[in-house]
Amino acid sequence: MASIFSRIVAGEIPCYKVAEDDNYFAFLDISPMVKGHTLVIPKREVDYIFDLEDDELAGLHLFSKKVAKALKAAFPCQRIGMAVLGMEVPHTHIHLIPLQKESDMLFSNPKLSFTPEEMAEIAAKIREQM
Amino acid sequence: MASIFSRIVAGEIPCYKVAEDDNYFAFLDISPMVKGHTLVIPKREVDYIFDLEDDELAGLHLFSKKVAKALKAAFPCQRIGMAVLGMEVPHTHIHLIPLQKESDMLFSNPKLSFTPEEMAEIAAKIREQM
Repeated sequence: MASIFSRIVAGEIPCYKVAEDDNYFAFLDISPMVKGHTLVIPKREVDYIFDLEDDELAGLHLFSKKVAKALKAAFPCQRIGMAVLGMEVPHTHIHLIPLQKESDMLFSNPKLSFTPEEMAEIAAKIREQM
Repeated sequence: MASIFSRIVAGEIPCYKVAEDDNYFAFLDISPMVKGHTLVIPKREVDYIFDLEDDELAGLHLFSKKVAKALKAAFPCQRIGMAVLGMEVPHTHIHLIPLQKESDMLFSNPKLSFTPEEMAEIAAKIREQM
C-alpha cells in the first residue's frame, strides 16, 4: 500500500506544499516543532534513507538545500537544522527545522498547532522565497 | 583560527577515527548519545552545511552513507539516524546515531561515557565494516 507521503504526492491527501520538482517534494510537517518545520521527501517510496541510490540521495540533499535557503529567508533563524529519524512513516523524509537554539530540535518538545489559514500562509511565505 | 575539527583532521588533536578520504572525515563523538555515535565532516572548514557547494554537499552525504552502512553492520540497530544542528562547533558536522527507538535521538539525553580502550574498540569495529 502506498505510504501516506506517496498519497500526499499523488494529491490524494492534502498538504501544505512548499516545493516540488520531478523527483522530490517538500511540504509542511502537520505537527510542527517550530513555525516553518518542513519535510522533504523523494517521490519514490523508499523506507530507509541510506537505501536510496547515490544519485537519488545526492539529489534529495541538493533539493533540501534549496528548500532550507528559502525557509531561512522566510523565517529568519540561527540556522536550519536537519534530522532524519524515520521510525514512524516508512518513506524517507528529512526534517528541516528553523533553529534559534539547539533545544528547538528536541523531538520530545510539545508540537505547535496552527489553523489551516496559518499553515497556508506559512507555506506561501516559504514558496515565495523558492 | 582552525576549528577543533580542522585540528582533529590535521592530527593536532587526537580522535577515534572511523573513516577518511580526500575530502571527508569521520570520527567518534566524544560525548556519545549511544554507542557508535559518529560525526562526519568535510575537511574544508565551512560553518553552515547549506553553505557547502553542491558537489561538496552531495559528496558529504554519499560519504555519510558509506559510514552509516558500516555503523549499522558494526552495531545492529533499527536504523541510523542523522542530525545536523551545528550550534556548538562552527564546522559542518553530521551526527550519525544508531537508533533502536526515536528517543535515542534526543540531544537532551545524558551522554554516555566510555573508557579510551572502549572508544578505540568501537571505532575499530566500525572501521572493520568499511
